[in-house]
Amino acid sequence: MVTRHTPDMRRRRADAERSIAAIVQAAATAFSERPDVNLTDVARAAGVGRVTLYAHFPTREKLLEAAVEHAVAEAVTALDTARIDDGPADEALGRLVRLAWPILDRHRGLHTAAAALHPSVLRDRHSAVLERIRRLIKRGQAERSIRTDLSADWLVTVCYSLMHGAAEAVSEGRLDRADAADALENTVSGALAPPGNRAQPSRKAR
Amino acid sequence: MVTRHTPDMRRRRADAERSIAAIVQAAATAFSERPDVNLTDVARAAGVGRVTLYAHFPTREKLLEAAVEHAVAEAVTALDTARIDDGPADEALGRLVRLAWPILDRHRGLHTAAAALHPSVLRDRHSAVLERIRRLIKRGQAERSIRTDLSADWLVTVCYSLMHGAAEAVSEGRLDRADAADALENTVSGALAPPGNRAQPSRKAR
Repeated sequence: MVTRHTPDMRRRRADAERSIAAIVQAAATAFSERPDVNLTDVARAAGVGRVTLYAHFPTREKLLEAAVEHAVAEAVTALDTARIDDGPADEALGRLVRLAWPILDRHRGLHTAAAALHPSVLRDRHSAVLERIRRLIKRGQAERSIRTDLSADWLVTVCYSLMHGAAEAVSEGRLDRADAADALENTVSGALAPPGNRAQPSRKAR
Repeated sequence: MVTRHTPDMRRRRADAERSIAAIVQAAATAFSERPDVNLTDVARAAGVGRVTLYAHFPTREKLLEAAVEHAVAEAVTALDTARIDDGPADEALGRLVRLAWPILDRHRGLHTAAAALHPSVLRDRHSAVLERIRRLIKRGQAERSIRTDLSADWLVTVCYSLMHGAAEAVSEGRLDRADAADALENTVSGALAPPGNRAQPSRKAR
């Protein structure tokens, strides 16, 4: 059976898509500013009613997932705009970390709020950016600029764990925000370099 | 005013301490076997009533915190028994990671359950083991066998993030359990070695 889309149905669907986009955008900003923000305030910031918000996102968790995916999409856009894949893979990975960090940093509040999600769900919402990291690591392993004694899967986890560890450390005052990008790039570089062939850090962190 | 401890009071206190120890021990085992275990089953395994359990641990979170601290204390005992502080600090840190991993691995279920705790609370429950890691890193920095371009605080976070990242990766099937100890030791070694002076990995991970 062919479903017929009347002009009314199309308009309602376009309205729904606009509402969803506004809610997710507002949620990413609101959670980042205040991890414990209530959903009524998110609805207000998005210019929709609470009923509309709950119709699209029946739980706080569902809205958090969408907000994380939105922030990750922002990072992916930045990486793709910067043509992150060009040049030697180990250097490209350093640039990736340096480009992604300010976006993660800006969403540290969202990161704190998203600790309520199951770790595997949270990681799943990062798949678009993890896919870019995996691609660079695989290429670096083929070029031998990235260590081959450890699996690409594990090295992706290393990058993910370090980036989120840094966000948490900055939030809790254990890492100076001004040092974070250098610390991350130099740590990732050391962790992923082939043993016995370790690159000099690109910048002094302190 | 001096409080007088009657024999009755002393006996009740000793009983309470035995109950608490039994509950925490049972909880560490129960959460590790089944992260979603209910507290009635924990009470039964500890040989106490539900009322007694709730009297000492009014929430699931409080019991999780105590269970994590119990598992961490087990790791600290293993490290202190092995005189982890002897020898060059970078090698000692490798041994520490290798000694702590099987204890973390055995408590992976507890680690999954403990994701419900606030990250800063969870980290706080790890302070006994993080203190040993920090001491080794400080000594390694003084000996120049551990990098000095990054702060000891950040390098402690690197170890913590990588160990818990590995536990999560094994739980989710992204890292082979048999490879985990080698992967961890070699990754920590690379991340913490002074730039341009990177140690060979102690064992091939694959």
